[in-house]
Amino acid sequence: MRLVIIGGVAAGSKAAAKARRVNADLEIIIYQQEAEVSYSACGEPYVISGIIADSQQLLIRTPSDFAQDRIQVFTEHRVETIDHVNKQLVVQDLKTRHCFTSIYDRLIIATGARPIIPTINGTNLTGALVLRSWTDLQTFRHTITDLKPRSALIIGAGYISLELAEALTKLNISTTIAARGQRLLSAFDADMAALVLTHLQENSVSFRFNTQVAELIGHQQRVTGVTTTEGEFIAADLVIFAIGIQANVELAKQAGITLGKTGAIQVDARMATNLSDIYAAGDCCETRNRITGMASWQPLGDTANLQGRVAGENAAGGDAYFQGSFGTSILKVFDFNIAMTGLPEHAAKQHGFTPLSVTVTAMDKARYYPNAHSSQLKLIANSNGRLLGAQAVGKGASDKLIDIAATALLGNLSCADLEYADFAYSPPFSPVLSPISVAAGVLASRIKQQT
Amino acid sequence: MRLVIIGGVAAGSKAAAKARRVNADLEIIIYQQEAEVSYSACGEPYVISGIIADSQQLLIRTPSDFAQDRIQVFTEHRVETIDHVNKQLVVQDLKTRHCFTSIYDRLIIATGARPIIPTINGTNLTGALVLRSWTDLQTFRHTITDLKPRSALIIGAGYISLELAEALTKLNISTTIAARGQRLLSAFDADMAALVLTHLQENSVSFRFNTQVAELIGHQQRVTGVTTTEGEFIAADLVIFAIGIQANVELAKQAGITLGKTGAIQVDARMATNLSDIYAAGDCCETRNRITGMASWQPLGDTANLQGRVAGENAAGGDAYFQGSFGTSILKVFDFNIAMTGLPEHAAKQHGFTPLSVTVTAMDKARYYPNAHSSQLKLIANSNGRLLGAQAVGKGASDKLIDIAATALLGNLSCADLEYADFAYSPPFSPVLSPISVAAGVLASRIKQQT
Repeated sequence: MRLVIIGGVAAGSKAAAKARRVNADLEIIIYQQEAEVSYSACGEPYVISGIIADSQQLLIRTPSDFAQDRIQVFTEHRVETIDHVNKQLVVQDLKTRHCFTSIYDRLIIATGARPIIPTINGTNLTGALVLRSWTDLQTFRHTITDLKPRSALIIGAGYISLELAEALTKLNISTTIAARGQRLLSAFDADMAALVLTHLQENSVSFRFNTQVAELIGHQQRVTGVTTTEGEFIAADLVIFAIGIQANVELAKQAGITLGKTGAIQVDARMATNLSDIYAAGDCCETRNRITGMASWQPLGDTANLQGRVAGENAAGGDAYFQGSFGTSILKVFDFNIAMTGLPEHAAKQHGFTPLSVTVTAMDKARYYPNAHSSQLKLIANSNGRLLGAQAVGKGASDKLIDIAATALLGNLSCADLEYADFAYSPPFSPVLSPISVAAGVLASRIKQQT
Repeated sequence: MRLVIIGGVAAGSKAAAKARRVNADLEIIIYQQEAEVSYSACGEPYVISGIIADSQQLLIRTPSDFAQDRIQVFTEHRVETIDHVNKQLVVQDLKTRHCFTSIYDRLIIATGARPIIPTINGTNLTGALVLRSWTDLQTFRHTITDLKPRSALIIGAGYISLELAEALTKLNISTTIAARGQRLLSAFDADMAALVLTHLQENSVSFRFNTQVAELIGHQQRVTGVTTTEGEFIAADLVIFAIGIQANVELAKQAGITLGKTGAIQVDARMATNLSDIYAAGDCCETRNRITGMASWQPLGDTANLQGRVAGENAAGGDAYFQGSFGTSILKVFDFNIAMTGLPEHAAKQHGFTPLSVTVTAMDKARYYPNAHSSQLKLIANSNGRLLGAQAVGKGASDKLIDIAATALLGNLSCADLEYADFAYSPPFSPVLSPISVAAGVLASRIKQQT
């Protein structure tokens, strides 16, 4: 039996590895459009900043590593069409431009996503950049080396925008973030996002909200800035598009695979598409939000890995299920650790919950222990006490707080449960009562008083 | 209504604060034997080592802080007897030796625990020490200043022993740990404890297992060493008893309060004793192990705080429940973070489970991110997949791993649940798949194969 996997970054390479473990006899082939497979795209901003010295460190497995598991990797090969009736692919070798036919018994689509570039003038100027693929990373680095930019304008105010703002600031590039909306990090509640804004401003990042770029302006093929829809010119040596990403679904759509409401590929819990023997995993497909039960799109590295594992197991003849995600995510920006899980308060309201919330100062050590830091921890619960979400922002252990909350969501726990959770206490690690317990206790008392 | 609390360190002071919040009209009195109330005993080893410069930093609330909440604190007052029929106490003012009668409507016993000192010769020599109370801490510090010891023998190989071994080593005091048993940290499985042993040895701490001290030897009232039951002399300028602690239950026992099998005060989930209107909380009383359902004794600071909160709420007329604990605990020793929750494998077997376990290397960041550290993470599950416990030992984020596991225990989660948990991933915080998911996945696969 022959398994073909289209795409070999996160979901694709994980699917291949899992399929091999489940089925030793399977023939496994990966077609990967880029020159590299199995790299950590999430590490790219740290290569830009120089925190990671060499982009090669982001490579997880090489084609020869895969070969040791009898997984054939064809890099610089693009699948052009899927014929699901005859279980055939047309594949182009991008080096030779030669096209050939490849058959499959099982197929996994892991084509990922790509940055959205607005259809405006000037996006092809030198100095207009995106950061997502391996190729993007190399272009980004060479552009900085060649242009020696002194200023950058980042369009968009999400995760990659903020991470790049830090990276560029560390390179002494004066950085401005321009966003169409009124604030950054729309996945977070406004009160928590405001803390992040202040921290970025304290680290010399400038912001322009309610700003829409009309076109990029250049001189001798090199970007010099942008004009806004208001007619203002903003000078910048680099213009970076970080307004969002879109799923690579064209191949799937052409093959007759159903897309979901989010625009990404629709899959069931076994990661199967509507077409027989075709699975999808990673950023090209949907997931299910485990709180709302609704389809959502969660294009994150860890989700891609988990989905890849399930798709790989099922395609290899196993039986695994991906129940969905809680939308847990995290980013580091300067000294702030910024994380969330579940629903923010505004989304909880939109989904028909009647949320309560509390925000507490969460120390990561006993108050008197050296180098204690704090985050602001916001817990959001439904009026019946069930935890709905959590957000943590600050220099403290936001990652730990949010992973506790994510586990609590998985266990469908209430604030009354969490108030008396048994966390690990010793002065170097926590206050005597975990901030999670303290915040949950406040909400539990409030709910008790209401009933 | 008048609430009297006997003991004002962790449970007692928390109970007072909670009682005040629940009932603004209550008269609240704390009788505390020592000169200080409301201090962090868990911080004491760090005062010894000098990590915390001033022991005053460990004071959480002073009597005048309590007074602001209309809580009267009588320090250096010892309750001598409880007359539960007439709801009267006999209290001695230790400064004047004057005894008086005090009445109560509700009583909370929070008398804590004390170090076990073996009944052998020489325990009253200068240089023979324990560390638990505020008074112990002052004596310990003055003894080190006065004696300028160059060597120390710590008897016992539990948490306080290991923390003190680090503290004394940092003071350039050559430190040996002597234990009756064959290994350290009996609450952990032997394989995990062995990692801790190696780390301590690498940091110049010596060990003598299977060693029982027969008596302390001194010269001019100053300790010079010990002899073992095998007749060997071990020289030491300090001898520290860290073989364990015992609950202070004499007062309760005299009053007719039922003690449990563990020897500590028996309480129900409302922290009520068998005698009407008398509650107990903290190290003097039992808790319930939430996995085995059996009474256990968990004399830890965070448990004391949670129990104190429940006792305070109920004594003040509220209705709160403490469901018990999972035995979660943590300590830092040199560069190692050592934590556990739930049942170790050996205890799981004793309680009739058929446990499976796996140990994985748990990085706390992406492999390529600077300053990534690792812990060994051991997960223990029942044959039906339910998580039973976890242990983490190493330089990595053991605290985070164990708090995730403790939350999973609270949610009664299985390995199959945890395999697909949605944790916060970004390279500065975690590998792409959390070590918890990886370890749970291994166990889930093993269980799947067996069935």
